[in-house]
Amino acid sequence: MCVACNHTIHRASHHFGWNRDFAPVLTARPGETIHFECTDSSAGQLGEGSTVESVRNLDFSRINPVTGPVFIEGAEPGDAVKVTIRKFVPSGIGWTANIPGFGLLADQFPEPAIHVWKYDASALTPALYGPGGRVPLKPFAGTIGLAPAEPGLHSIVPPRRVGGNLDIRDISEGVTLYLPVEVPGALFSIGDTHAAQGDGEVCGTAIESRMNVEATLELVKDARLASPRFTTPGPVTRHLDAAGYEVTTGIGPDLMTGAREALQRMVDLLAAEHGLNPVDAYMLCSVCGDLRISEIVDMPNWVVSFYFPRIVFS
Amino acid sequence: MCVACNHTIHRASHHFGWNRDFAPVLTARPGETIHFECTDSSAGQLGEGSTVESVRNLDFSRINPVTGPVFIEGAEPGDAVKVTIRKFVPSGIGWTANIPGFGLLADQFPEPAIHVWKYDASALTPALYGPGGRVPLKPFAGTIGLAPAEPGLHSIVPPRRVGGNLDIRDISEGVTLYLPVEVPGALFSIGDTHAAQGDGEVCGTAIESRMNVEATLELVKDARLASPRFTTPGPVTRHLDAAGYEVTTGIGPDLMTGAREALQRMVDLLAAEHGLNPVDAYMLCSVCGDLRISEIVDMPNWVVSFYFPRIVFS
Repeated sequence: MCVACNHTIHRASHHFGWNRDFAPVLTARPGETIHFECTDSSAGQLGEGSTVESVRNLDFSRINPVTGPVFIEGAEPGDAVKVTIRKFVPSGIGWTANIPGFGLLADQFPEPAIHVWKYDASALTPALYGPGGRVPLKPFAGTIGLAPAEPGLHSIVPPRRVGGNLDIRDISEGVTLYLPVEVPGALFSIGDTHAAQGDGEVCGTAIESRMNVEATLELVKDARLASPRFTTPGPVTRHLDAAGYEVTTGIGPDLMTGAREALQRMVDLLAAEHGLNPVDAYMLCSVCGDLRISEIVDMPNWVVSFYFPRIVFS
Repeated sequence: MCVACNHTIHRASHHFGWNRDFAPVLTARPGETIHFECTDSSAGQLGEGSTVESVRNLDFSRINPVTGPVFIEGAEPGDAVKVTIRKFVPSGIGWTANIPGFGLLADQFPEPAIHVWKYDASALTPALYGPGGRVPLKPFAGTIGLAPAEPGLHSIVPPRRVGGNLDIRDISEGVTLYLPVEVPGALFSIGDTHAAQGDGEVCGTAIESRMNVEATLELVKDARLASPRFTTPGPVTRHLDAAGYEVTTGIGPDLMTGAREALQRMVDLLAAEHGLNPVDAYMLCSVCGDLRISEIVDMPNWVVSFYFPRIVFS
């Protein structure tokens, strides 16, 4: 129950993909706060009791539903929607999967895998993983965006200038996000809620978890924003950085190869040091490890680093 | 004066580039601690009183000297050198430059620029920058590595499997770094000390600053390490994250383009919000802003983000 909200959109009001011609489920005035009920990114196909067979049988036409769209009165192309993320109400249930063909090391992990999480939805204490792992939680919405100008149905998978499946771990409670408007009314939608994720979302999934979100939508007229930007009110890694990091590197002239090598080396390290199956280490990296570009100017070799928070095994 | 050190290598004992045939300036036993006097990355060409003319006249054959090499007894190819970074003794003077032809936005900033820093070498309080900026400091060595196996002289600029010009901001006090050995004796050298840098070192230079370093060199026999890795004993961003971040994004199928766009948008934002010249904003981004890969799996578009710490203007 959201006391300060002007509207609630129930999770039945969702759509798959983006389309400027989808009918709005709500018209809101700038400044109004909306309570969005979001489902998980499988639209309920995966969850408690799911197995690798459930992953194998995923219906991809029902991937990544988003709740909305909201028509914002007065929004015009060239404006920006200012989204203030007020609150997440998590469900306490989540899943992380290796989905064949998807993920940074898809070639090395061709078989489906899944981990089902149960976590304390109120206290958000770190969630248990395998032998001895405890993953700090920080809820956010993986998909948050507006309808693109180009007519027709667009896949939900790639993020775009108007936002969408950004999967930016730090767009969490208290953040202010600006999204460029391309169509009248902006057509805002949100979903794909995650209980935790590292920078990169390397295996392709986070702790995918149904939750509700409260957000205020405002307008910045004639903002002329090139792509999404956001402001965090405080630190972004203190939930997991206290014990420091193990860091592996990938060095060379291609950032993608560097990212793959840094991740591969972390998977190997975690498997060796903590007795994890490689695919379990891979999924663990996705929910709490961070890809960073350490150096991008020392021609011709760049350094991509993978940071794994030691607190997980402390 | 280093009480716990076994040796001191003075800054006169430096070399330019890497070469397995450089004569060692010291032979050390595994476990010994060495006091390295390092010069700055211009070998003293830039510093107090330098102007854009000084940048224009840089002698590139004298770029990035490193102190060493140290022959470590018993080191053989296949081993790793374990380096424990014990202490930095900074000089209090530094510089940041835009060097034409060098840097992530080299095409947009073809003219030389320089900022000379003076900072409190004991307290390491944030260093002043332009109108109202205060940059948190965290010393580290930009270049730390071993001689590569391949004979001949190799440029100091690109980092390699054996380390070198890694420019990893977090290889700071208390860190343990592992480097793969490719030649007998390993031939360890260090230099290019920085008072502060962001992930990416986007303009090509950090707060370049002469300082001394104390480090312990140990051996891990037969480590079979693929590339450098390191362990941080604690958090890595708490010196600058208290007020949160402004974040811009670059979204698309190429990580390099995404990095350039995210940075360009932050330069524009800082210039607009704080009245900085674009090149000054660019250099400021280099010394304290971080490039992160937020998402690398939502085909075909990846998200690269540039994080600028708000504490700089708080």
